[in-house]
Amino acid sequence: MSQRCLNFLVIWIMACFFLLGSVTAADETRQVRLMPWPASVNVSSAAPLVIHTSFSVAVQGNDPHLHKAAEIFLKDLRRHTGSLPLDFSIAGNADQAQLAIDVDHPSEEVQKLGEDEAYTLKVDSARAELHARTTLGAMRGLQTILQLVEITPQGFAIPALTIEDKPRFAWRGLMIDSGRHFMPLDVIKRNLDAMAAVKLNVFHWHLSENQGFRVESKKFPKLQQLGSDGLYYTQAEIRDVIAYARDRGIRVVPEFDMPGHSTAWFVGYPELASGPGPYSIERKWGVFDPAMDPTKDSTYKFLDTFIGEMAALFPDQFFHIGGDEVNGKQWDANPKIQDFMRAHGLKSNPDLQGYFVERVQKIVAKHGKTMEGWDEILRPNMPSSIVIQSWRGQKSLADAAKQGYRGLLSSGYYLDLNYPTASHYVVDPMSGDAASLSDAEKEKILGGEACMWAEYVSPENIDSRIWPRMAPIAERLWSPQNMTDLHSMYDRMAHVSDWLNAYGLNHNTEYAPMLQRMAGTDDVSALQVLVDVVEPVKAYAREGLATSEATSLTPLNRVIDAARPESETAREFSEMVDAFVSGAIKPGMEAQMRQRLMLWRDNDEPFQTIAKRSSIVQEVAPVSQNLATVAATGLRALDYLDRGEKAPQDWKTQQLALMQQAFQPKAQVVLMIVPAVQKLVQASAGETPTVLALPKNATD
Amino acid sequence: MSQRCLNFLVIWIMACFFLLGSVTAADETRQVRLMPWPASVNVSSAAPLVIHTSFSVAVQGNDPHLHKAAEIFLKDLRRHTGSLPLDFSIAGNADQAQLAIDVDHPSEEVQKLGEDEAYTLKVDSARAELHARTTLGAMRGLQTILQLVEITPQGFAIPALTIEDKPRFAWRGLMIDSGRHFMPLDVIKRNLDAMAAVKLNVFHWHLSENQGFRVESKKFPKLQQLGSDGLYYTQAEIRDVIAYARDRGIRVVPEFDMPGHSTAWFVGYPELASGPGPYSIERKWGVFDPAMDPTKDSTYKFLDTFIGEMAALFPDQFFHIGGDEVNGKQWDANPKIQDFMRAHGLKSNPDLQGYFVERVQKIVAKHGKTMEGWDEILRPNMPSSIVIQSWRGQKSLADAAKQGYRGLLSSGYYLDLNYPTASHYVVDPMSGDAASLSDAEKEKILGGEACMWAEYVSPENIDSRIWPRMAPIAERLWSPQNMTDLHSMYDRMAHVSDWLNAYGLNHNTEYAPMLQRMAGTDDVSALQVLVDVVEPVKAYAREGLATSEATSLTPLNRVIDAARPESETAREFSEMVDAFVSGAIKPGMEAQMRQRLMLWRDNDEPFQTIAKRSSIVQEVAPVSQNLATVAATGLRALDYLDRGEKAPQDWKTQQLALMQQAFQPKAQVVLMIVPAVQKLVQASAGETPTVLALPKNATD
Repeated sequence: MSQRCLNFLVIWIMACFFLLGSVTAADETRQVRLMPWPASVNVSSAAPLVIHTSFSVAVQGNDPHLHKAAEIFLKDLRRHTGSLPLDFSIAGNADQAQLAIDVDHPSEEVQKLGEDEAYTLKVDSARAELHARTTLGAMRGLQTILQLVEITPQGFAIPALTIEDKPRFAWRGLMIDSGRHFMPLDVIKRNLDAMAAVKLNVFHWHLSENQGFRVESKKFPKLQQLGSDGLYYTQAEIRDVIAYARDRGIRVVPEFDMPGHSTAWFVGYPELASGPGPYSIERKWGVFDPAMDPTKDSTYKFLDTFIGEMAALFPDQFFHIGGDEVNGKQWDANPKIQDFMRAHGLKSNPDLQGYFVERVQKIVAKHGKTMEGWDEILRPNMPSSIVIQSWRGQKSLADAAKQGYRGLLSSGYYLDLNYPTASHYVVDPMSGDAASLSDAEKEKILGGEACMWAEYVSPENIDSRIWPRMAPIAERLWSPQNMTDLHSMYDRMAHVSDWLNAYGLNHNTEYAPMLQRMAGTDDVSALQVLVDVVEPVKAYAREGLATSEATSLTPLNRVIDAARPESETAREFSEMVDAFVSGAIKPGMEAQMRQRLMLWRDNDEPFQTIAKRSSIVQEVAPVSQNLATVAATGLRALDYLDRGEKAPQDWKTQQLALMQQAFQPKAQVVLMIVPAVQKLVQASAGETPTVLALPKNATD
Repeated sequence: MSQRCLNFLVIWIMACFFLLGSVTAADETRQVRLMPWPASVNVSSAAPLVIHTSFSVAVQGNDPHLHKAAEIFLKDLRRHTGSLPLDFSIAGNADQAQLAIDVDHPSEEVQKLGEDEAYTLKVDSARAELHARTTLGAMRGLQTILQLVEITPQGFAIPALTIEDKPRFAWRGLMIDSGRHFMPLDVIKRNLDAMAAVKLNVFHWHLSENQGFRVESKKFPKLQQLGSDGLYYTQAEIRDVIAYARDRGIRVVPEFDMPGHSTAWFVGYPELASGPGPYSIERKWGVFDPAMDPTKDSTYKFLDTFIGEMAALFPDQFFHIGGDEVNGKQWDANPKIQDFMRAHGLKSNPDLQGYFVERVQKIVAKHGKTMEGWDEILRPNMPSSIVIQSWRGQKSLADAAKQGYRGLLSSGYYLDLNYPTASHYVVDPMSGDAASLSDAEKEKILGGEACMWAEYVSPENIDSRIWPRMAPIAERLWSPQNMTDLHSMYDRMAHVSDWLNAYGLNHNTEYAPMLQRMAGTDDVSALQVLVDVVEPVKAYAREGLATSEATSLTPLNRVIDAARPESETAREFSEMVDAFVSGAIKPGMEAQMRQRLMLWRDNDEPFQTIAKRSSIVQEVAPVSQNLATVAATGLRALDYLDRGEKAPQDWKTQQLALMQQAFQPKAQVVLMIVPAVQKLVQASAGETPTVLALPKNATD
């Protein structure tokens, strides 16, 4: 599911024009910077509830999950206030407590899809009251309280307000691919913390791939022994993660991808494959030929035992069997398989795959689970219980709903493609083809899941690919559909991003050390000035632009690996330029623009001092030169505009050509201030500014 | 041992004058920035050894500790190069490897004091050879190789060179106090990583205090059940830490402080105490009355069982019994104890304590261990095997050596006092009173230990109190005595500090999140400008300046907790000013000084915007005003100097008074640019600049 991309950038740009005009966020979004935004917020003018070291929480009832949730809340409250392990406590009774939690009943022992997650929160200067119908709702409310904590002139405090809240979708997920690059337990746990913080409730764990089989099987130990390079999770570790997630109101849905994406299985069990073998763990990226043999009963016998073992290990109701991207070459080349197809009237490889999926579905059902898979598993005769995860797009999801199948949207939420946050935020599971569905059909759309495919992430930089962009996607899945103000979104995202630091995520803190390592010096300011305004190329362009083939052994220590998927500096500069050229200039804005442009213009000399010492930094030296040139152009355009003098046509033409060239990717990164400077050039020549689209080789 | 301070600041200032003139560091320290510096380094002009993804290590022999050391080395090499878990390998034979490790024999199974740690390293463009007599020596050599890894125009590489190296002292330690604030295992482990990186070989673990008993005892479970608030290490965790340390060539010496500093023991076992009880865990800081009853046989029976249990848990030869700071009040108040003293001819409380320590020493010896303790345990009749850890000073250490006792220096290495690095670096176990010892007496001085007492550190900021200042202390204990160049030390320390980021230490990365939390905003630049130039007050002044009593529940989330013990910005500025007023000005220097002064002068307005929203930031608002005033004075002084015009006397007098006032601590922090600006004022008035000493209330 990680290959190919839907070119939703075009859709996104159209959406932006539509959305920039809308003002749906209430005044409250400027007062309390919550994300996801609740269904209803009323901020009071009363004094806030100050959090003293004697702060305590009272929990009504005996649900151990609720007590655990209160303990986790107190631990998190300490992290957000810099307090110590002995501060704060769970109070004996509600009268003594500053926060009283009251739920009508426990949540299900094994967390279920569609459990009630609503809650009500009332805070005044003396105390806070959190009410929910279930413990799960209380967990969501506790996260809201944590996000509300802010420093005030009186100390840390929670503003006085009333919130009524409930999720829009029942399935709000993040998929992490531990197959392509193994992610250690601490990475998984800190991401679960952050998921809980933005009210996500499904961790979809992609556990097998061509490049690695990542779970201990006691029934088939060669899966991990020969298929993982020793990088796998033991069953005890899996149980630990599931319990950790459950404590935070998160379901864990395992994915074992079949019949394709399964080379790593065949290293230990070549008899499962449709080709002769032997097999070794795949080191390259892409779609490969090996696929399970759907024609042999022994395959299903193996899967019956394996799925039985895993169904017992993972308590969730849903079991994801992948089912994507089979190229069919092994099937074409195997005469026995061809005979089988003829004998069974299977006319094509998709038909054969359909046969396989049907049989696997019966095994999954036998072990008490509901099957989930990518678009490809949807075939005639499938029981209506199965769930389709759509990577192909909204049409595919809507089509499934029309046929009565439940589905999730993942298309538009691929975090590995390095698209800007706004492009994800504008994607709504209910928009596009889904908008015209009947109410009954709409009910089939359960929600969505963001996907973090792992070809180009390591434990060091995966957080920066997921966060903070995941938070606005979580808002899309939780909050009212009319939350569409991009300015408010970016403002609140910046706040939540810092706030997530408390969970040990390194999406902000790892940036400087990565730059220091590649520079070999502690003074990386000139390098940072450059990297602050570049972005990795988008979608699958990294592969297209590679000078040599990347594998699972290729170090991820370059500028493209440190650069943020969306440059905040470039985005802010672009916003200033947009305001400037549209006449909406504010005091001080031009001085700020000039200051930045001068910094960029003069940065190349100190940059080159670093570059000449480092092969890694050297790679982006041409980008640094472009930055200097482009910035000088921007300053000259501002000079024309200041003097009210129209820039000469030939200068303009020359500069626009230069912008085209400077926007070309180099070392697989793109200089993101170019479109804004182009607008300045056009404006200085008296033209209406246009949007410079990313070059095709930076998005393909 | 955490109370009282020796005013070694005076010694330090004298030492500085002595040392600034010396140039002992060879040219090599500018080429390879190692810390600790090896006994002998010869850098070759040959091309470096480039580290490709195929890099492999060959290990000669079957010592499992050496194989483990090679694995840890490869893991660390990945962290230092941003490589992935599948890069690099252990090769089958030496011919295939880029690094060949060869040792004469394994190190002892239980690591011993005084094992050979010497090694020889030869690197040329094709390969590296590491030879050591023991596995322990190989571990030290591997750390040298890691520190040598640098980015080059050819990629990551190790410079061609030859190193012959061995430690100056056999005992090079760091003490961490887990008693006053509990430090979770991840804090301990990342600090062990960093200790190994700078070749320290003893982790002294302070495990019991008035504020907490931190180890699970199976014999006396009420110790941890009632004495720890649930914050303790299980025996399995202790074993895990010991194994982790052993894999890195580090001994673990436990300390159980007795007969004082032991309130937490008495919560579960009040019968051990000399007063009636009941007892509760102490929340305040200081020296308290409760002490064990040295007159009852039951006390020794308890200790026999307890020490036996702990002696089995901790394999190291040495067992630290503390023995410090008994105020004797419980003994004075207990008639039975007074009777006992009379009956046994014990004339004073120190005599009674001596009696106690003698009996405990016999118990420790019975369980096969060598007793270690703070200065106070040294009494007549002690066996010569015991080791004295000196917190009282060099004289105390030298006196012990003259009496034939082995000792360690800790006075001068107290990291909790927030002294500048140079003040620790100039302290040498063999200087002061030790310098006049005979050779045989000098042999008694085993080395030294830095101490991290934990009244005012949390898991969040402890790294920034230990690192990077620990690294130059490690150099003092490992490297030749003539390594005394402070410029070289600060330069290499800055390099090592960044380089330690790879181990997950947060001494650099946690600074910004702490500022963001107290500011409640992501734009903390104005706050950071201020905090960059302040330092916490020194020694025990924090307590003296407190507006309310600090306890173990007081949050450590203020500016004093985020500010670095030594401000790098202020130090660099001071160096520029020193060069400027002494006529050693370099091109660009004055522009840099002016740029900084202007930044500081103009910082108060944006700072106050942050401060008015936050009670925590508000505290340092007067310091921000002082910064603006002092910076304006500095600029004016530079103007006089530039114009060659002598500053008027009354202006000078006024400004010097202002400097005195601005150097007063506020909110327990000190503005560290004041002395440099005073020098500019004096110079502008034609006077010889003098050193402005810290006010007494900032160091007491």
